[in-house]
Amino acid sequence: MLRTNTCGELTISNETQEVTLCGWVQKSRDLGGMTFVDLRDRYGITQLAFNLEVDKPLCEKARTLGREFVVKATGFVKERESKNKNIPTGEIEIIVTAVEVLNESKTPPFTIEDDTDGGEELRMKYRYLDLRRNPLKKSLALRHKLGFEVRKYMNDQEFFEIETPYLIKSTPEGARDFVVPSRMNQGEFYALPQSPQTFKQLLMVAGYDRYFQLVKCFRDEDLRADRQPEFTQIDCEMCFVEQEDILNTFEGLMKYLFKSLKNIELADFPRMDYAIAIKEYGSDKPDIRFGMKFHELNDLVQNKGFNVFDQAELVVGICAEGAANYSRKQLDALTDFVRKPQIGANGLVYVKCNEDGTFKSSVDKFYSQEDLQEWSNEFGAKAGDLILVLAGNTNKTRSALNELRLEMGTRLELRNPNEFSPLWVVDFPLLEWDENSERFHAMHHPFTSPKNEDYHLIKTDPGKVRANAYDMVVNGVELGGGSIRIHDKELQEKMFDLLGFTEEEANSQFGFLMNAFEYGAPPHGGIAFGLDRIAALFGGSDSIRDYIAFPKNNSGRDMMIDSPSPISSEQLDELQIELQTKHV
Amino acid sequence: MLRTNTCGELTISNETQEVTLCGWVQKSRDLGGMTFVDLRDRYGITQLAFNLEVDKPLCEKARTLGREFVVKATGFVKERESKNKNIPTGEIEIIVTAVEVLNESKTPPFTIEDDTDGGEELRMKYRYLDLRRNPLKKSLALRHKLGFEVRKYMNDQEFFEIETPYLIKSTPEGARDFVVPSRMNQGEFYALPQSPQTFKQLLMVAGYDRYFQLVKCFRDEDLRADRQPEFTQIDCEMCFVEQEDILNTFEGLMKYLFKSLKNIELADFPRMDYAIAIKEYGSDKPDIRFGMKFHELNDLVQNKGFNVFDQAELVVGICAEGAANYSRKQLDALTDFVRKPQIGANGLVYVKCNEDGTFKSSVDKFYSQEDLQEWSNEFGAKAGDLILVLAGNTNKTRSALNELRLEMGTRLELRNPNEFSPLWVVDFPLLEWDENSERFHAMHHPFTSPKNEDYHLIKTDPGKVRANAYDMVVNGVELGGGSIRIHDKELQEKMFDLLGFTEEEANSQFGFLMNAFEYGAPPHGGIAFGLDRIAALFGGSDSIRDYIAFPKNNSGRDMMIDSPSPISSEQLDELQIELQTKHV
Repeated sequence: MLRTNTCGELTISNETQEVTLCGWVQKSRDLGGMTFVDLRDRYGITQLAFNLEVDKPLCEKARTLGREFVVKATGFVKERESKNKNIPTGEIEIIVTAVEVLNESKTPPFTIEDDTDGGEELRMKYRYLDLRRNPLKKSLALRHKLGFEVRKYMNDQEFFEIETPYLIKSTPEGARDFVVPSRMNQGEFYALPQSPQTFKQLLMVAGYDRYFQLVKCFRDEDLRADRQPEFTQIDCEMCFVEQEDILNTFEGLMKYLFKSLKNIELADFPRMDYAIAIKEYGSDKPDIRFGMKFHELNDLVQNKGFNVFDQAELVVGICAEGAANYSRKQLDALTDFVRKPQIGANGLVYVKCNEDGTFKSSVDKFYSQEDLQEWSNEFGAKAGDLILVLAGNTNKTRSALNELRLEMGTRLELRNPNEFSPLWVVDFPLLEWDENSERFHAMHHPFTSPKNEDYHLIKTDPGKVRANAYDMVVNGVELGGGSIRIHDKELQEKMFDLLGFTEEEANSQFGFLMNAFEYGAPPHGGIAFGLDRIAALFGGSDSIRDYIAFPKNNSGRDMMIDSPSPISSEQLDELQIELQTKHV
Repeated sequence: MLRTNTCGELTISNETQEVTLCGWVQKSRDLGGMTFVDLRDRYGITQLAFNLEVDKPLCEKARTLGREFVVKATGFVKERESKNKNIPTGEIEIIVTAVEVLNESKTPPFTIEDDTDGGEELRMKYRYLDLRRNPLKKSLALRHKLGFEVRKYMNDQEFFEIETPYLIKSTPEGARDFVVPSRMNQGEFYALPQSPQTFKQLLMVAGYDRYFQLVKCFRDEDLRADRQPEFTQIDCEMCFVEQEDILNTFEGLMKYLFKSLKNIELADFPRMDYAIAIKEYGSDKPDIRFGMKFHELNDLVQNKGFNVFDQAELVVGICAEGAANYSRKQLDALTDFVRKPQIGANGLVYVKCNEDGTFKSSVDKFYSQEDLQEWSNEFGAKAGDLILVLAGNTNKTRSALNELRLEMGTRLELRNPNEFSPLWVVDFPLLEWDENSERFHAMHHPFTSPKNEDYHLIKTDPGKVRANAYDMVVNGVELGGGSIRIHDKELQEKMFDLLGFTEEEANSQFGFLMNAFEYGAPPHGGIAFGLDRIAALFGGSDSIRDYIAFPKNNSGRDMMIDSPSPISSEQLDELQIELQTKHV
């Protein structure tokens, strides 16, 4: 090694040792006769000291070292006069006897500090410099440890990590595939996996009993802020299990991860029916760090002459504790919030529960003090609380109130990023109605099994059939989801039929799976977690990009390597494809 | 769980316990009043026993269980009368009280036995059945453990596993890329990585110090027997290192893997110059489990009137110990062997060292007993040995003699699969001349650094310049290779120039890397191992396919899912590409 030690490990116990360090110049300071250089590597920062009187040429050389120069320095460890208690190496410095510049650096386009002055685009282009900053270094270190601990737990539970192929087959169901033209099979294409779903099921048919894999998955979707075209899943499957077994096994995984990465002991996860989650939180991934549950008010508020409520399918509200002192301006801001196009409410009704027992509402014209007292009773509101009510179409109103609840949770500081409230949401519907295509879609995916006790409804009222499907949610973030699968060929065929597949389509796309079901398919089920999301949650960040070494921007571009890019006509010819002429 | 125990764990210590097992019917036997069913799962096989007299309906039900039926059986553990010492559960059987068929099975198209009657193609199509066989189960279990232990070692050595992107940029240098059309950036393409080479170098520029990743890589090559279009690498890179540091770190990894997976303590790995490997073994990946080194004979044998030798650029041979008793037929077989087109020699000269001290050769016409004694002396041959000599063009002859040496090693049983002889081959040439394009190619890749002491030859005699490049070889198999990289922008530019890149080509393909070199790039180097190959070596197999759950055939097809396949015209339109019309 070019060094004897890293920049993060020398302490007073190493005093008088001769050492050689390598790293990057974080900063340097000239103080009269002394020059100090902070040398940085992955492990920490160590102060190099140069004395102008003792060795003038060396000190002058030190004064030429610019930021981000790569330097090799040899010297002796010495106790510092003014100690820095904030860093592990803060008690010592290196009295340098020789210094070598291993590589120079141009001035970086932004500062390599915890808070940088670089904009998003510039930092994406120079990602290798952005990655030098501490916050990103910590993110990737956490992600490494996360992956390692996942594997440790799964290995201890006798899961095998088995790699499934990346060059697979395109299936129009679900999101859009990335495809790969085949040169050896011209006119044909591979697809990149959206998930290894069918392969992990085949591994169960093959008797592998417990499978997992940390695996890249691909979706060619229009990107939202928190999506990437390639993302990493912890993909898992088990044989001879019922839903409870999956929940227990992976609740165990999450508890283990919280303990080993954050030293937090989580209590048993509560379970919530999907129907309850929707009714009480307006979301299938409720943040239960705080209450503020929905209360439905139709019976209380309708037929009192207030047209907006009378015509609404649903009138529903929340009670924000201690927010009765909100000013006109604050209430207007909330109204503006719910009216934003992405929230979509028409307006907001409020009731302040005054300290003197009276109520002040935005609908005083229509509702008496006695009426409002009834509302207040419904919420169990106390003096000082603020009731917020939305009305309209059921689904849209629940969805809007969910956003308002989260906003109020944030404003009232009820969403502490250092507190973690996990839960399982269970009993998802098997199917959801799609207005556009006017048919049912699989809510989870076409391989999910219906609940036995609901199966009789499959023809008469398919929307009512619940599935053996479940999501793990922490702090309002869906970390993972899965289901007990169908393992019976006939049932799988019926399912494809229900989802609008013709027999030919089902066979050409999933024939191999249905064939496999004829050769002794065991009962099985599984789950998949979003590794990027878990990393972000553990790191206390909302953005998964900070936990991906080389992410893409919202147009799916890698700004650093400038990809995608045109390819040569020779490459196109070899693949026997051509670009369509654009019709302007 | 549907079971209380697995089929691999019950022993005499569980006697009288009531248990429930789930698994597949391996086979069943009716012996008079008893029916025995072998139930199999990932963990083993347990015998189920049914007594016709005790419970006739149950026993009759058991007699309907076909091979590969999935069964759940409850009963009591009982000591067996006739024990099977070959399996861990062989002392007990289950006296079954209830049995449930969880799923039936059609008769499999081949037997699920260690030695199956299924042909390659059938087994590929029904891979999920082939994977039920013990040899494949052991292969995938070994691969799982291998990956886990690699990660354990690397984590202990403070390497971070960091995921690099799969959707990157096409670079014509090297093998052919698989490409992925971009929908959001029309007319442009991503490429799948042939290796994460540039990304790992950028992680070093970013200061991550020690990186590794188990990662899929992709090459669109015409497939040879032991190649797959997608394969897995253990990809590694380190900062502030010299060649010795890489060799020591990864020799440590391999020793650790041999110890933890095979309980073998390997001695320190010998190191061999590339030039020596070529001269003495005719290969850059010599199998050194046995000697049989090359001896060059030009000085001894030329100008004695034997035209074939006189006109040869190289006359070179090996001495096969104890093979002087080879029959005419055996010698003819060897001649046929070296004459095969893929070996390419014109003929084979032999000298038998007889027990009586005389010599018998195929060139007695031209060489006296004294001449042959001199040959024998050159090889240090003993009575009973067989000298085999080839002649011709240097490279071709060495290559042919390498094959003959390996063949003789096999015939003389010198290549014991349970013996492991690792070595490092070092000092590879930087460049190799390509006859077709009439220019130099990078022997490793364009990022490999030349040796300082050879650098002065770069203009005058570039073929002589050695690189800081190395391969790890075990038993004649190249398990991995790497190099110390260039970290200087100017040198990297010169290298691209030497390799025939125009400045524009170099910039458009690798501009991001050369830019990165201007911002404080540290000295760095690394290595990449073929995980599939390591697994096959450890498993004692020549075929990597047995260590890949879902491999592709030689046409790059997945026979099971029948991929690649045509995609819809809607998909093509969205991607703005079309298939070229074939010109018949």
